[in-house]
Amino acid sequence: MNYNYRLKMSYDGSAFHGWQRQNLEKNTIQELLETQLEEILGEVVKVQGSGRTDSGVHAKGQVANFHVTKRIDAVSLRDLLNQRIPDSIRILEAKEVAVGFHSRLCAKGKTYCYQIDRREKPGVFTRKYAYHYPHKLNVEAMRKGASYLIGTHDFRGFSMIKEEDKSTLRQIKEIRIQEKGDYLQFYFTGHGFLYHQVRIMAGTLLEIGLGERNAESVKQILDSKIRKEAGFMAPAQGLCLMEVYY
Amino acid sequence: MNYNYRLKMSYDGSAFHGWQRQNLEKNTIQELLETQLEEILGEVVKVQGSGRTDSGVHAKGQVANFHVTKRIDAVSLRDLLNQRIPDSIRILEAKEVAVGFHSRLCAKGKTYCYQIDRREKPGVFTRKYAYHYPHKLNVEAMRKGASYLIGTHDFRGFSMIKEEDKSTLRQIKEIRIQEKGDYLQFYFTGHGFLYHQVRIMAGTLLEIGLGERNAESVKQILDSKIRKEAGFMAPAQGLCLMEVYY
Repeated sequence: MNYNYRLKMSYDGSAFHGWQRQNLEKNTIQELLETQLEEILGEVVKVQGSGRTDSGVHAKGQVANFHVTKRIDAVSLRDLLNQRIPDSIRILEAKEVAVGFHSRLCAKGKTYCYQIDRREKPGVFTRKYAYHYPHKLNVEAMRKGASYLIGTHDFRGFSMIKEEDKSTLRQIKEIRIQEKGDYLQFYFTGHGFLYHQVRIMAGTLLEIGLGERNAESVKQILDSKIRKEAGFMAPAQGLCLMEVYY
Repeated sequence: MNYNYRLKMSYDGSAFHGWQRQNLEKNTIQELLETQLEEILGEVVKVQGSGRTDSGVHAKGQVANFHVTKRIDAVSLRDLLNQRIPDSIRILEAKEVAVGFHSRLCAKGKTYCYQIDRREKPGVFTRKYAYHYPHKLNVEAMRKGASYLIGTHDFRGFSMIKEEDKSTLRQIKEIRIQEKGDYLQFYFTGHGFLYHQVRIMAGTLLEIGLGERNAESVKQILDSKIRKEAGFMAPAQGLCLMEVYY
C-alpha cells in the first residue's frame, strides 16, 4: 500500500444511514465510497473517515483517506467518483498525501455546527437541515452555560460511553452561538468529541435557553460525570460536520 | 360567501405535482389546502392561486385566496393550517381581505427566480433547488439577450400556447442576472407570464451564455413568434415564484 489519498466531501445525511459500513446492506457513506473506489481502481479499498457521523448527520467538510498500490491522478479520481456517486454526496477535493497520514489519528480538531430553526413551522427549504425548536430562548444564558464547557474536561456526563476504562477527557476550544434570522447556530470547535457529545451539549444548552435548567448546571454535569444529569440529545438532522483541521 | 381570506405561502415543489388540483389523486398544493380548509371550516372551500406552478416548481411567496360564509380568526387559521399540512409547505401569512380581492386577477406583477448551479457536481444541500448546468457561460452576452426581453412584447415564441385567439402580449419590467458564488440567478419581474415562459426564457438565455446562439436571436424569436426558434425549456426544479405584487 504505497500511495495514500485524502478525500474531502460534503453529504446530505438524510440520504444515508450514517458514515460507518454496517454489513447490513444499509446505505452508508463508507460502503458507498469503498464500493465505487474498488470498481474504479480494481483493488480492495478501505476508506478511513476522520470520525463516524450518525445516521442523519450532515457534512460540509468530512475528511477520509485510503491506501492503494498504484499511483492515481487525484483530480481525475475525484471527477470519476463524483460521476458515480449520487448527488447527495460530493467529493470536494482529492489529493495525494504522505503514506503515514491517517484522517482520524492526525486530526488536530473539528468544528461542528448545530442549527436550530426557531420559526413556528420549519422553513420549507431547510427542514431537513435544522432542528425545529420554536420556543423562546434566552441566548445569553446559553452563552454562559457554553462558557463552562470551554477547556479540558471529563465529558463523560455528555456522552453515551459506558466503559469505565475509556478516557473521556476532551478539550473544547470554542463555542460560538450565532443568531442568523430565524436560525440559531452553535459552532463547537474542539480537539475531538465523544460519541453523541455534540448533540447532548446542544440539547443541554437548549434546556438552559428555555429556562428548564440554569447555566451553572453545566458545571454539575461535568463534575458528576453522569449522563442523566445532562440534557436531552438533540436530533441528528440539526448537526453538520463543518471542518476537520490537520 | 361573505368573507375573503388571503394566504401567502412557501413550498418545496419537489414534494408536489404542482399547484393545480387534477382530480387524479395527485398530490397538488391546491387540493391539499382545500381538503384541510374544508376540515377546519366545515364548508366547501375553493382556493384560488395567483397562478399555477408546474410540478417541481418552488415558491417562496405564492399567494392564494378563498371565500367562506363565516368570519374566522386569520392568525389562528394560519397556525391550524400549518399544524395540519406537511413541512414541505408553510403558510407565511393569512389575512382577511376585501370580498372582491382575487389573487390572480388583482395581481399587478410577479417575480420569479431561476437558479443555476454551475459546480462540476451539484451542491449537496441545494440539489433540489437549482438546475445543474456546469458549463462556462458568458454572463455579459446573457445580460444583452435579456435586455431585448424587457418591455411589452408578444411572447408567443417563448410559450407553449397554441390557441391563435389568445393574447400572448406580456410586459417584462426587469431581468436581473446575479452571480452568487457557484450559483447564477435570473430574476424575472413582469406583469404576468405565459405558460412555461420563464423556463423557456431561462433556457434561451443559457444557450446565449454557452455561445450556441447570439443575444440578437432573442429579437428574432419575438418577431417570429415561433416556439421552436427559442431555446430549450429549463427544468422545473430551478424555478421559484418569489413574490406576487398587488
